This record gives sequence, structure tokens and C-alpha cells, in this order.
Amino acid sequence: MKIIVIGAGYAGLTATRHLIEAGHEVALWEARERVGGRIFTQQIENGQYADLGGQWIGPTQDRIYALVKEMGLETFGVYNEGKNVLALGGKIKTYAGLIPKMDLFSLLNLDFVLKKLDRLAKNINLEKPWLSPDAKRLDSMTLATFLDRQVWTKAARSVMDAAMETLFAAPAAEISLLHALFYAKSGTSLETLINIDNGAQQDRIKGGAQGPADRLAARFAQHIHFNRELKAVIQDENGVTLVHQNGQERADRVIIAIPPTLAGRIYYSPALSARRDQLSQRVPMGTVIKCYAVYPKAWWREQGMSGQVVADEDFPIQTFFDNSPADGSKGVLMGFSLANRARPLLDKSMAERGEMVRNMLIRCFGPAAGQWEQYFDHSWADETFSRGCYAAVMPPGAWTGFEAALSEPCGRIHWAGTETSPIWNGYIEGAIRSGERAAAEVLGLG
Amino acid sequence: MKIIVIGAGYAGLTATRHLIEAGHEVALWEARERVGGRIFTQQIENGQYADLGGQWIGPTQDRIYALVKEMGLETFGVYNEGKNVLALGGKIKTYAGLIPKMDLFSLLNLDFVLKKLDRLAKNINLEKPWLSPDAKRLDSMTLATFLDRQVWTKAARSVMDAAMETLFAAPAAEISLLHALFYAKSGTSLETLINIDNGAQQDRIKGGAQGPADRLAARFAQHIHFNRELKAVIQDENGVTLVHQNGQERADRVIIAIPPTLAGRIYYSPALSARRDQLSQRVPMGTVIKCYAVYPKAWWREQGMSGQVVADEDFPIQTFFDNSPADGSKGVLMGFSLANRARPLLDKSMAERGEMVRNMLIRCFGPAAGQWEQYFDHSWADETFSRGCYAAVMPPGAWTGFEAALSEPCGRIHWAGTETSPIWNGYIEGAIRSGERAAAEVLGLG
Repeated sequence: MKIIVIGAGYAGLTATRHLIEAGHEVALWEARERVGGRIFTQQIENGQYADLGGQWIGPTQDRIYALVKEMGLETFGVYNEGKNVLALGGKIKTYAGLIPKMDLFSLLNLDFVLKKLDRLAKNINLEKPWLSPDAKRLDSMTLATFLDRQVWTKAARSVMDAAMETLFAAPAAEISLLHALFYAKSGTSLETLINIDNGAQQDRIKGGAQGPADRLAARFAQHIHFNRELKAVIQDENGVTLVHQNGQERADRVIIAIPPTLAGRIYYSPALSARRDQLSQRVPMGTVIKCYAVYPKAWWREQGMSGQVVADEDFPIQTFFDNSPADGSKGVLMGFSLANRARPLLDKSMAERGEMVRNMLIRCFGPAAGQWEQYFDHSWADETFSRGCYAAVMPPGAWTGFEAALSEPCGRIHWAGTETSPIWNGYIEGAIRSGERAAAEVLGLG
Repeated sequence: MKIIVIGAGYAGLTATRHLIEAGHEVALWEARERVGGRIFTQQIENGQYADLGGQWIGPTQDRIYALVKEMGLETFGVYNEGKNVLALGGKIKTYAGLIPKMDLFSLLNLDFVLKKLDRLAKNINLEKPWLSPDAKRLDSMTLATFLDRQVWTKAARSVMDAAMETLFAAPAAEISLLHALFYAKSGTSLETLINIDNGAQQDRIKGGAQGPADRLAARFAQHIHFNRELKAVIQDENGVTLVHQNGQERADRVIIAIPPTLAGRIYYSPALSARRDQLSQRVPMGTVIKCYAVYPKAWWREQGMSGQVVADEDFPIQTFFDNSPADGSKGVLMGFSLANRARPLLDKSMAERGEMVRNMLIRCFGPAAGQWEQYFDHSWADETFSRGCYAAVMPPGAWTGFEAALSEPCGRIHWAGTETSPIWNGYIEGAIRSGERAAAEVLGLG
């Protein structure tokens, strides 16, 4: 069988690998000049690197840990010691441990809401979210509506919004409550998604999160065609013709492993079903600008600070993390500007954004934070072949209105990508699992 | 100035007309073989016709009434006499006038909810919905959430859902409350949108709603290029190159007058801004199948029936209307299958859908309803160059997250289409007004 795989992110690479191992003829088309997709490690000066896209892995993400090991790479723990900063209501406070320095009522409320979400999430049918108990009602409201009802103080709401936006890269207003619950259970629990230790932010990959993708791709480099953009998919009785910007190629099957909203922009003949097409209109990507401040050393550690910040909407950045390299040769603070805080920043220059970030860091940490060596950031909504990150965020009505359309094959077309994974949806792990599933679909045919 | 207009619906035709009248060089590209876009009058046998798309006009829609007159065409009143059918909770009831036969509490509740929505709608800023008082909160919830809170009986909710779905062609779960209120005020009020007499369904156009478009187009037929699909928009310092499937053409400006979700599928160089691109991911089209049952005569009129039906979700169709021709030469019942009732029907054949409609009509009207001459329907989600109707439905967060991005020019690109109109958004009138506005934008430049 001849199979063409579209998109050399972790999903496409995984599918390609399994199909090659099964003895099939496989070509992998990648629109960019690199593999990794939304996982993008950029080399900066002096052997340093920066993960401009997805970067963290954590317990139960078995596939990516296994791949890291198989590729001869190593992980290291995220720095998580010292006091955190909470920038709330115009005040900068520091606190130790998991519990922010807030009034007791807000703290109890936060704990209650997170637990309630996790309790509701337990009932979700991960394989078929639309068949979950009460799915129609849960999918008829936004996560914001749930928070409006359950969060009772301004402080708790600000922290909750910053946390949810850091998880989804979208405002709670855009997210179906059903999808939020699905997403939480998909990654074990909200608690797991939020945490560093024993959570989704526990580990990083030495050399950058693109490393395992690069090394896997090197094994079948001759199968990969870079700078090749899929333009059209033409199916007939005997096969499928894939058209790119400079030519075309025949195959028996195609696996499309790119964000579903971008898959919706390709020309299909025959046209995709109305169901699939209309679903493609309802799978928007989140909005995130990942911001890096690089210092000669991690000076905050010496001050007993973790580098972690949670900030309310007075600030351009929801959350900061210590993103220094494993060898401690530099100090790196990495911040996420997300959702409606990121959107006004999209039209600004990197220099303007840098000034906003500098002002924020000085407010949070004092003047030392202004003395960086380098600032850079990466806006994923500006990336032509992603047009947003971390992943598609299902709006109300999409899961219950279109059900299996996200992953159901359309003739000779199979769909992969982290959005199609019931487990660790939105994460590297979900991408890998989706690639395995799509390859198995194709292999099951023949 | 040379301007290329994309899409020969009422918006594109109107823009073209004004630009030609102002003495500019204009080409109008249309992907289909006809003008009219989502307004589509099909000729059937014996000089009969059927409006398979938009068809109604009503008071305050000044532009379309003026155009009908200018083109030498006439309107006629929608048949609105006799008893209506309410199919609710497994029972078929008939009632005269505007007030359905329901328990008093449900009736009072319905009246209360409609008035409350109209009261809230009064505060909306039509030009800039995101600046309306309380916009962020209104845009953080779905219309369904509002109805969950305000509608207290199952009967009232069923009628309200059928009414809202008939207005939006989308489930209340998918619609931002802010958008629903904007839409209501845009068309005067919900009451206006719902009503036949003095409302948005008051009149039809003799010969079909595509007639004025056809006659307007005939005035500048040499400017129109049919079967020409826009594939790419390449801007540079001196102009813009528009690429279609068989060639390309230069212009100074382009007006894109197609649904925004489809505009998002075109290739742009330089790429559209992140803001515009991400908006394009959040403007899904409604789901509607328009179903026609044609009889030798309007037999229901003789039985004192209006032909109008409102039905709950036990049925595949939300609402039926008497859509007989002006001369009474045939009897036509036209029904809308919409939103989540339409979606399971998308995968069925027209014959299967016809059987479902026949069974429903027999239940509502008795055996005579099964004796039709002809059944046909039209699924707009299946139309390659619309991919849904009536219009884009803004999900929660889109208006407040992306603000003016729907209509703000992008370099040499100007946007038209009913979705960009503050007045009669979603209607023919809004399309015409958007074409006027886009033409004025371009004319204002020169």
C-alpha cells in the first residue's frame, strides 16, 4: 500500500514510522522546513536553545517518555523550588508551596471549583464525549458560565481565569464546558494538568522538545519532503491524488495530521461531507505568544524565588515559569500571553511586547528583572502552518452537534493530530497516540 | 482604479454596481454558474420556481424593496390566514392567530422571554457590538444558557428552540448571547424577525428572490466571470494579484463578498494578520435543509389552515410555511430542517428525507398531505460555495475577542457580505448594505 502522511509533527511522524515498519510505501509531506509542528525548538546563540512551542511532559504520558528514551535523549525536572509570585488586584505577593496567598474564602472557593470540575470530568466518555451523561446540557454552556456560577470572589476568579487560560490558551468564554471536562479527564484530571510535580509540567527534554522528533525523522529522512504544502486531495475509485504547490502524487490512502481548522482549508474533490466541513468551521485554535527573557543566570533562585508568576488581567502575561536550561548555564523566565490578553499584542512588534514584559517582570521581581541579555517571543497565531496553539478548542455545540466527525475517515482520508486523541488531547502524548491510531486504521484495511 | 469583486451574491453585485457607476474598471468573479449566492431560485417544471435559499423580505428593508422596484419586479404578501399547527409533546394542536394553544404559564413565559431579549437587545451597539454595555459577560455565555435560566416549562422551551433555530439555523448552544441580541436589534427586534405580517417574513418576490440579482447582473453582464474560483490573493506595494483556477488578474483593490469562513480558506500572501485569521476560525455557518412539498393546489387553505407548523424535536422539521406561488397555480408547503435536527439528515438521501417529511406532514395535516406531486430539498451545508446558511453565527467570545476584524480592510482587501452589516445582518438587506459600504470604502480611497 502507498500512503502519504501530511504534517511531520509528532502525530504524522508516528504514523509514518508505524507504516514504514509494517512494510508499506510511505511519503511524509511537511509544509515547513523542519519537523515537530507545534513543537519547535529554536537554537539560539552559544549552544543554547529555546522551546518556542510545546515543551513539557509528565507522568502517564508513556509514549513520549518511551520515545525520548528510545531516541537516546533524557528528561530533566522543571525547577520548582522557592516562592511564587501572585500579582493580583494591583498587589504583588509571594507565597511558598501550592497555596497562593489569598483570603481564605477565595482559597476554599478555588479548591471547591477545581474539585467540582474534576468530579464532573470523571463522568465523561473520552472516546465519545457526546455520549457522556448530560452531554447536551454540558455542551450548551461555556466554561465561563460554569465559573460565573461557581466562583464567588474576584480574586478566585482572576486566578481561575489565569489558570484556565494557561491550560487552554483560550478564554473560558470560548470553551464548551463539555470540552473542558473532556480535556481534564483526557489528561487524567485538572489537578494533573495544572501541576508541575506529578503533573503535566513535571519534565522537560534535554536539548529541547523537538529533539525526539528530529531523531525519529532522521531514521526515515528519505521519506520526508519538506516545503511541500498540501493543496488538494482528489479521491477516485482507485486511489487518491495529493496535489502540492509544485506537483502531485498518487496514493492509496492519506493521513492528514495537521490542525483540523487548517485541514478545512484544503481543496477536496469530491468535497468533504457537509458534516465534516461544518465541523471544520468549529475547531478554532487557541491564541498564545510564548515570551522569553534570558539572563546570564537564574538570579531569582538565589533570592529564594521559583520564577513562577500567576497574574491577573492588569498584566499582559498570565503565567511565568523558570525555563532555564538543565545545565544552569543561563537563567530563563518564560511567560505565556494567552487568549484575550494575547490578542491586542498580536499587532504589536516584538520590541513593543518586550517592553510590556519587562515592565511586568520589574513589577513582579524588582529592577534585576529588567537586566536581561535577550528577549524574544513567538506568536503561534502568526505561524502559517499552525495559526494558533496549543490546540483546537471546541466551542459549545461542536461535540454534540458533530460527534465523531473529527476523527472518522472520509473515504481514503484518515485524520490524525492531537485533537483526535481521547487520551492527553492537546499534548505531545495525544499527538503520538493519534498517529498510532491512524496508522492502525490504515493497516487494518490491508 | 481597477477593482475585482469576489462573489456575485447581493453584496458583490451591489458593490460592483456602485463601482461601475463611479466610473471604475470592475470585474466580478463568481465561482458558481449563476448570481445570487445564498439566494437561489430554481426553475421547476411548467414555469414554476422554488426559492431554495433566502426568500423573504419585510418592512424597513429599504434597499431590497427599492431594488425590486427598480428592476421592474413585484412583491406579494405571504399567505398568513387560517389556523396554525403546533406539534408538541406528541400532540398535534391547531390554533388561530399569533398565540399558540399552550398552557397559560408557558404562554406567559414565552412572552416574557421574548420581551426580555428585545429589552436587552436595545442596549447593543450595532456598529461595535463589543462596546455594548456588559458586552464581555453577554459574550461569555450562549443563548442556550440564557434560555435555561429564563424559560421554565418544557413546552415553552420547545417552542422557543424551534423559533430560535428558525431564526439562526443553529442551535442556541452555538450562539453567543451577545450575538443573538445584536442580531435581533440588527433586524429591528426579535418580534420583527419572527413575524410574518409587519415582520421579516412579510413579502416574497414574484418570480423568486434571485430575480432582482439576475436583472441587476444583466446590466453589467460583460463584467461578470462565472465558474471562476478565487484561489489566492497576493498583495504587493503596487497592487494585488488575484489567482483563480485558470489564471490570474491584477487589480488595485479587491472586495471579498463571500461567507467569512470560506474567505478564511483562500491562500493569502502576505498571510492575513493573526487576528483576521483566527477570527476566520470562529465564524461557522448555520445548518439548514430547505424542504419542498408541491401539491396541485393549496388544499390546506380550503380546510381553514395556514400551512404553518411549529414542531418540537420529535420531528425532523422545526417550521413549515405556505410557500405557494403568487398565482395560486400550485400548493407548496416549505419546511426548514435546522441545526441539530438537520445534521443527522445530511447523510441521508433526498428520498429518505422526503419520507421523513411526508410522515411528519401526514401527522400534522392528515393523509392528504402525503399526496404530493413532488418533493425536493436543498442542503446548504452541501453547497461548495456556501457550506451552510443562512449566515455566520458568532460563537461566544468572537465579537469581544476579535472586535472589528470581521469588516476591517486588510491592506488592499475589503470585506463585504451580510455578516459585515450592522443593519439586517444575515438578510438580503444586510448583504446589499454591506456591498454599498465596501464600495464606499474603496471609493473613499480615490
